[in-house]
Amino acid sequence: MSALWFEGGKLVMIDQRFLPHELRLVSYDKCDDVAVAIRDMVTRGAPSIGAAAAFGICLAAMAGEDLDGAAERMKASRPTANDLFYAVDYMLARLRAGDDPLEAAEDYCASIVDRCKAIGEHGGALIKDGYRIMTHCNAGALATVDHGTALAPLRQAWRDGKDIFVYASETRPRLQGAQLTAWELLQEDIPHAIIVDGASGHYMREGVDMIIVGADRIVANGDFANKIGTYEKAVLAKELGIDFYVAAPISTFDFSLERGEDIPIEERGGEELTHVGGQLIMPEGSPVRNPAFDFTPARYVTGYITEKGVLRPDGIDAIRED
Amino acid sequence: MSALWFEGGKLVMIDQRFLPHELRLVSYDKCDDVAVAIRDMVTRGAPSIGAAAAFGICLAAMAGEDLDGAAERMKASRPTANDLFYAVDYMLARLRAGDDPLEAAEDYCASIVDRCKAIGEHGGALIKDGYRIMTHCNAGALATVDHGTALAPLRQAWRDGKDIFVYASETRPRLQGAQLTAWELLQEDIPHAIIVDGASGHYMREGVDMIIVGADRIVANGDFANKIGTYEKAVLAKELGIDFYVAAPISTFDFSLERGEDIPIEERGGEELTHVGGQLIMPEGSPVRNPAFDFTPARYVTGYITEKGVLRPDGIDAIRED
Repeated sequence: MSALWFEGGKLVMIDQRFLPHELRLVSYDKCDDVAVAIRDMVTRGAPSIGAAAAFGICLAAMAGEDLDGAAERMKASRPTANDLFYAVDYMLARLRAGDDPLEAAEDYCASIVDRCKAIGEHGGALIKDGYRIMTHCNAGALATVDHGTALAPLRQAWRDGKDIFVYASETRPRLQGAQLTAWELLQEDIPHAIIVDGASGHYMREGVDMIIVGADRIVANGDFANKIGTYEKAVLAKELGIDFYVAAPISTFDFSLERGEDIPIEERGGEELTHVGGQLIMPEGSPVRNPAFDFTPARYVTGYITEKGVLRPDGIDAIRED
Repeated sequence: MSALWFEGGKLVMIDQRFLPHELRLVSYDKCDDVAVAIRDMVTRGAPSIGAAAAFGICLAAMAGEDLDGAAERMKASRPTANDLFYAVDYMLARLRAGDDPLEAAEDYCASIVDRCKAIGEHGGALIKDGYRIMTHCNAGALATVDHGTALAPLRQAWRDGKDIFVYASETRPRLQGAQLTAWELLQEDIPHAIIVDGASGHYMREGVDMIIVGADRIVANGDFANKIGTYEKAVLAKELGIDFYVAAPISTFDFSLERGEDIPIEERGGEELTHVGGQLIMPEGSPVRNPAFDFTPARYVTGYITEKGVLRPDGIDAIRED
């Protein structure tokens, strides 16, 4: 399964807003339309956002658009995931070097897939037979073009014949855990259960061996942003002595920011909370707050599972030059 | 506002499953129907469950039913809230003493309301002007016939002219925080915002001065059961140095159990997660787990706000004889 690909001059994506009930494909032939699709979460997950952005810039280049303007509008589509900026800058550098736009975007996309495959191998080695593993949101193939970040180690362990069980917290408000992660786990028959976010602590205390989450941005001191609710799991993991891993490719690291407090946290529209499937589920008139992400301090992290191996919080400088 | 009352030979209750969109009243004239209504959560919240059960036993007595059988079926309606057992035993004792059934049930209900009013006074005194307070689920008037447990101190502080702000976590799966607590806060114009459960940690770190929750059962060592997600907030409160209070009348204390692990935790049907407003929101075929409660160890509790005053975890023996 691939979350997006280029075909017939267009970027084709699974419209993830219709999963798990409908596998709907949408295609784009204009860079700005890709930016809107990213903003509206047709595709989501930091590495997939990066890949979509790379193909968007490719479309702009093929159409002879002003690249700086296209890049700026693309970067403005969402504020938190570092891969978006990383991918756009990668494309600009390749295009300035005179490279073919499609070849550059395909290279970017292939590199993401390769990195996630390596993350699966490094992370899979951490998983022992019989492990119960909790994840949050969707950091699977849908979020990363293929394999996944947090889900790649689980897939690898399962394919290696290890007996694992996955707790997928549903991840309100958009339910990516329930709708996307559970859907991916079902495809591969990996044993799992969906739980409400608030039940995470209960099950962690009952017996979870490891937590693996993805990341949208990891900064110089090791603090990282990820889907709202991640910080809570990290604090609980520390309290309960459970290993807490962050799986992310190097495209997610941003050494230009020092601390988690510096990461821009996107606040999305309140209707993501107040409505489910078009139905109002809350009182008309009650104010809501809807931060899409939170940041987790590095002191709660056991390790970062990257394509270069598993790094400890005090060892991430090793990839600073990459 | 009252969550339930006796009128014309019937127990009348707000059917809380239709709030906040519709204020629907239902009435019952048979004890066993009240037990079914409790099981199906027409009314909910430990003190309201107790009051409904008291009126149910009253109906059984007025109808000349076998009281032991009626009491047993009533006690089997839900397993976690202590008030259910407390209220049934209270009614049996009063009836064995030859008291009038309706007078006994009205006494029970009035005592719950008085206790909650006293909880509001004791708890309100803990709230300072400018406080940002977080609560979970609904421990308001709907949950307790009137006033509330966790919400009573907030109402009191607001009526005393203190400037407060309330974060109501939505409380998946049944959304009592969003649908009931926010509705109650709206009625009194108390400033508030609904957040997803997973955003609690984010806002607690940003600035919350106090957490107040209700309880379904508090046992001898001070551990207590409350809505799923409470344990997580308690751990986060400890990590962040935020005061964490449990508001509950003495009817919620169960000194016959020693530890939180001994409290039966109800697991409810999976459709509470998988469906919202009748719509399937998760993949067909994904297993779900749905514990309705979790327990929180006493070491995370700053104090118990009861009708007898605010007790510290090492001081709850003071009410053992009550």
